[in-house]
Amino acid sequence: MRPLVKIELSEDRLFPVDAGTRKIARSLYERVADLPIISPHGHVSPVLLLDDRPFADPAELFIRHDHYVTRVMHSMGVDFSRLGIPDRRGGDEPASPREAWKTFCEHWHAYAGTASGYWLTDVFVRLFGIDEAPCADNADMLFDTIQQALQQTSFRPRALFDRFNIEVLATTDDPLDTLIPHRALAQDQSFKGRVIPTFRPDAYLDPMAEGWRERVFALLDASDATGTDYLAYIDALEVQRQRFIEMGAVSADHGVRQPLTVEMGRMEAAALFDAGMKGKLDKKDAVRFAGHMLMEMARMSVQDGLVMTIHPGVYRNHHNETLEHYGRDMGHDIPVRTRFAQSLRPLLERYGTAAGFHLVLFTVDETNFSREIAPLAGCYPSVYIGAPWWFLDAPDAVQRFRSAVTETAGFYKSSGFIDDTRAFLSIPARHDMSRRLDASFLARLVGEGRLPRAMAERVMIDLVDTMPRKVFKL
Amino acid sequence: MRPLVKIELSEDRLFPVDAGTRKIARSLYERVADLPIISPHGHVSPVLLLDDRPFADPAELFIRHDHYVTRVMHSMGVDFSRLGIPDRRGGDEPASPREAWKTFCEHWHAYAGTASGYWLTDVFVRLFGIDEAPCADNADMLFDTIQQALQQTSFRPRALFDRFNIEVLATTDDPLDTLIPHRALAQDQSFKGRVIPTFRPDAYLDPMAEGWRERVFALLDASDATGTDYLAYIDALEVQRQRFIEMGAVSADHGVRQPLTVEMGRMEAAALFDAGMKGKLDKKDAVRFAGHMLMEMARMSVQDGLVMTIHPGVYRNHHNETLEHYGRDMGHDIPVRTRFAQSLRPLLERYGTAAGFHLVLFTVDETNFSREIAPLAGCYPSVYIGAPWWFLDAPDAVQRFRSAVTETAGFYKSSGFIDDTRAFLSIPARHDMSRRLDASFLARLVGEGRLPRAMAERVMIDLVDTMPRKVFKL
Amino acid sequence: MRPLVKIELSEDRLFPVDAGTRKIARSLYERVADLPIISPHGHVSPVLLLDDRPFADPAELFIRHDHYVTRVMHSMGVDFSRLGIPDRRGGDEPASPREAWKTFCEHWHAYAGTASGYWLTDVFVRLFGIDEAPCADNADMLFDTIQQALQQTSFRPRALFDRFNIEVLATTDDPLDTLIPHRALAQDQSFKGRVIPTFRPDAYLDPMAEGWRERVFALLDASDATGTDYLAYIDALEVQRQRFIEMGAVSADHGVRQPLTVEMGRMEAAALFDAGMKGKLDKKDAVRFAGHMLMEMARMSVQDGLVMTIHPGVYRNHHNETLEHYGRDMGHDIPVRTRFAQSLRPLLERYGTAAGFHLVLFTVDETNFSREIAPLAGCYPSVYIGAPWWFLDAPDAVQRFRSAVTETAGFYKSSGFIDDTRAFLSIPARHDMSRRLDASFLARLVGEGRLPRAMAERVMIDLVDTMPRKVFKL
Repeated sequence: MRPLVKIELSEDRLFPVDAGTRKIARSLYERVADLPIISPHGHVSPVLLLDDRPFADPAELFIRHDHYVTRVMHSMGVDFSRLGIPDRRGGDEPASPREAWKTFCEHWHAYAGTASGYWLTDVFVRLFGIDEAPCADNADMLFDTIQQALQQTSFRPRALFDRFNIEVLATTDDPLDTLIPHRALAQDQSFKGRVIPTFRPDAYLDPMAEGWRERVFALLDASDATGTDYLAYIDALEVQRQRFIEMGAVSADHGVRQPLTVEMGRMEAAALFDAGMKGKLDKKDAVRFAGHMLMEMARMSVQDGLVMTIHPGVYRNHHNETLEHYGRDMGHDIPVRTRFAQSLRPLLERYGTAAGFHLVLFTVDETNFSREIAPLAGCYPSVYIGAPWWFLDAPDAVQRFRSAVTETAGFYKSSGFIDDTRAFLSIPARHDMSRRLDASFLARLVGEGRLPRAMAERVMIDLVDTMPRKVFKL
Repeated sequence: MRPLVKIELSEDRLFPVDAGTRKIARSLYERVADLPIISPHGHVSPVLLLDDRPFADPAELFIRHDHYVTRVMHSMGVDFSRLGIPDRRGGDEPASPREAWKTFCEHWHAYAGTASGYWLTDVFVRLFGIDEAPCADNADMLFDTIQQALQQTSFRPRALFDRFNIEVLATTDDPLDTLIPHRALAQDQSFKGRVIPTFRPDAYLDPMAEGWRERVFALLDASDATGTDYLAYIDALEVQRQRFIEMGAVSADHGVRQPLTVEMGRMEAAALFDAGMKGKLDKKDAVRFAGHMLMEMARMSVQDGLVMTIHPGVYRNHHNETLEHYGRDMGHDIPVRTRFAQSLRPLLERYGTAAGFHLVLFTVDETNFSREIAPLAGCYPSVYIGAPWWFLDAPDAVQRFRSAVTETAGFYKSSGFIDDTRAFLSIPARHDMSRRLDASFLARLVGEGRLPRAMAERVMIDLVDTMPRKVFKL
Repeated sequence: MRPLVKIELSEDRLFPVDAGTRKIARSLYERVADLPIISPHGHVSPVLLLDDRPFADPAELFIRHDHYVTRVMHSMGVDFSRLGIPDRRGGDEPASPREAWKTFCEHWHAYAGTASGYWLTDVFVRLFGIDEAPCADNADMLFDTIQQALQQTSFRPRALFDRFNIEVLATTDDPLDTLIPHRALAQDQSFKGRVIPTFRPDAYLDPMAEGWRERVFALLDASDATGTDYLAYIDALEVQRQRFIEMGAVSADHGVRQPLTVEMGRMEAAALFDAGMKGKLDKKDAVRFAGHMLMEMARMSVQDGLVMTIHPGVYRNHHNETLEHYGRDMGHDIPVRTRFAQSLRPLLERYGTAAGFHLVLFTVDETNFSREIAPLAGCYPSVYIGAPWWFLDAPDAVQRFRSAVTETAGFYKSSGFIDDTRAFLSIPARHDMSRRLDASFLARLVGEGRLPRAMAERVMIDLVDTMPRKVFKL
């Protein structure tokens, strides 16, 4: 039996090890530590807050729905069924929540140094008062500790929302989503938070996406379209965007593999649309049509004001067997090389200087930060640099990001922190991480004589508070 | 109204924050702090030094001609006309110098952490004695302060050239440039500096470049060619290179998008040249011909001794509207992925070990530093690693560069610092930055027990003094 | 004459400069400093240990056979003949060992900051008690010092093997290698070390490799095949793998330029094989067949348990003239961009979750660490992250590696250190370097409050001892 490992949260965590610089970082951090959380892009379900039911158990809360957590164990040789995830094709009976939690505790060492390990520790200590690293021996005790806490009113979603000091929380939604939970939350006098939807139309724009044709028919139907041609399709997209805007949406999100944009006339677009709806579009034209539709989304954003965000470069569902048995979002999504400068040129040619247009570029290929994204943001008024995303949303990667983009684009073309999470409990830990890291980065610049301290203080506050409001029009 | 932010220059700026390492860095830096500046590649106009007129005003000096400075404001939503830049298609009346300066001061926070912010601070403090960060409130006062200084004889270009301790300054010139200013400066007994031209033939080598055919005719004409065929064209290029050499040139510079080189026989080259001159060259063959001409430039460099420098990988004039209204070099140039190992293989196969041949490779795609450029320089005697360039010419990027190339290629295959600037006043600040950063990098190696201090001292001096002389044959 | 530079080995070399973090690093390092060396992949010849002859002289030992060392001097303009390397096409008489050594000493400054410079210093000081940096003046003296030491019994290969505390040493071998030295060593009661072969079949798998057809015939012959068709070929490969396994092999290594894998039916594979054996395979099909054979190697690894390692992405023999005069492995091998996520998808689709399958991915294109390799290893149970390799096997690169992969894949999907060296004397210096760097990385995480110290101690030991045993099934 291994000895228990104690866990604790240092007041100075994530600050530089050098004492002088650490002191500057701490002082910068203190100016923003208690500012409200603005989360303009994420994947928390609004139903969680609408229903305000207690979380079921630690496995449901931390493991089963978080593919960042499950993929680590899967990579260590643990079958998904042992984590309580049902196999759609039958297979083994999924483990009970307590068994799944125990498996997780046995693999805690695998999270050492990872992004998930960081925020889980934060949550265990700060929210649940735990002071032992999970392991086989304390798994049951930790399960019970968390389970008991979850029964308390103060651990219900709305109570946590308040405790977390969240001012704005954006969800990500299908264009045909009813938005009923959003409406109900907005009308609920007892809930003061601002929970807004985000328009995410990928599956309606790409003729190669499975079920595209059926989705387009549903879109036309839902939008009371009078025809089924290209113009009706465009109108229907505009109608649904308007519906989102009325429910508070501030942005539209696009998760393409490559951010290809294509300049195309209406006649050709209409012809390709028709061919697509007849299932007669070849791959090359389908790619071109999808690239044209990304241009159309930019055009609509220029007109209706929705901020356009692009999250490209992920080869999703890399392992077909996992997809078939356990579905999407099971951690088998792998980044690939991404191009921005050439791919986005048609879009930027047309809308790069359009008044009020905001285009936020994210990447999981960090070579783009210094090479393409910072130079684009340092030139086009519309372009903003998205925060480090997905695999890059972790301390070292965040420091590499700031180092890569700042010297070219400064601090005032970055989006502010984006948690992009479906793990509700991780939100304060993630935003706190970002604030500490930005304080550390600024402290180094001050320590190296590259930035006056007073300017660093201004930048610190702007990064946390001013920029997300400005970039996302909040 | 925001409080004024004080600016000052720490004696220890850019040194590591760790006290012990900082002390080593300071001591290394002191050995080279006062060495003369060798600037073997840049874009200052020789006319500036020939005429030796006072700089007109702060906006003319710092803003209007510096696309690094203007692009930052443009990216913040400021129209170029507000910066005093005339719109070639009419448009708004350009702002007065004082208005442009005020706009710049209002956006000073956008330069926090940027390369331009760093050297502008250096110049404001060291040259003009300013101790307040620019802002809306002090804009007029700063304008007047700088304006008054510029009237003094000690702020004339030649006086600054002396004060900056510049030993050699290379300009970048069209192959048909008269070189009259260079000749006049060389003959001027009252001017002791060495100002040398650089042969930059891109527009004469690439059949896809606008006006290529007309330029080739002008080249043939200027070179007293007896024909208009391929051999006459090659002869003419050699004639012009010789003219540059006689005026002191030591290098020829090549700004291709991709450093593609193509092995091709004379017969085929002649045929492609003829087709190009008749406007009958398709894109594929034009690319091949340009790749062949890069080979020809290497061949000529082997023969006439001009150092060959390549600055590839930039998608220039990314935004067509800006190009049409405001012209080239307005900051809308975006790096793209670049390949060296495969693209340069034909050239290196032929000339990689040729006696006396020097090939200096620059990049704005920093992934190439460790992957391709350092391995090439660590193997071919002709290849040298160009200093961090353009977007990478800033403290963090320079440290990433040294870290990426040194372990493979050591210190003795790097070119020495290249400022590549058109901002005359930035030259001492940039070279000082480079010296401080190299001292910091070496100090870390000493501190980590990886390099004896005496060896670090030797390397320090060689990087600043020996290497640029050797690489550029000065 | 330059003053002599003293060299020494700091007890704290490679630890962070910050005093507090250094102390943690030192304490972590002490826990593993004396653990035995496990070297599961390298290029030392087993004959060295079988014969146990004294090393001939310093040039033979450090220069002539080490292309990392010779390429640096070649890049400084030194002809290979001056390093004692014979020109296969005649040319200059190769220099004597003493002359070659002197040339090396004269160029010692060129190794400052390089990977080779680091371990050579370690060996000079620790093994030979040298305390002066090599230079022209002490070259003869150093030659004699080393030469005298080499005559001692304690400097024979087997004595060093013991002194180095090597537990396992893997060699790299042709599939038709007799393995006689391995057998003899295993049967030699006086030698206690474990020296195991590695199956390296590249030249038998790629129809474009020179001599492929002849090699396949030899393979069929050596394997007592009854036919010459595709099935006989597959059988023969399995027979030879089995022979290696019986001699202790634990892995098969694959040095492809791109890790392309292709799903292909047996019928098509057989047809392409036949065409290849008739010399009638076009390049496209040859690439596909080689991609299919990489799949076959994975299939065999799943069946026979050999760990599959892939070392891709190197453009070998970049300079044809050097190849013709001096042969392969002369330092003219240049990394190129490499793709993993897409290239390996067919292989991972089929074998990514196969029980007991281990696939270790190496790269010389470090952009892959965070973008593709860590996400693959953080998802597929079979995939492990190979240690920094070749140009990246040096202090700063190793730190970039840990920073790039850990936040996504943790510490428990990395392979443990791989020295991959043919320089026998460098083995302890390299493993010591790796241990110090991992201690430094972990110490920083502890210092930044990201990892409890007790967990860092566990990880430290696992990285050095547990992981290589597990990943390579030792």
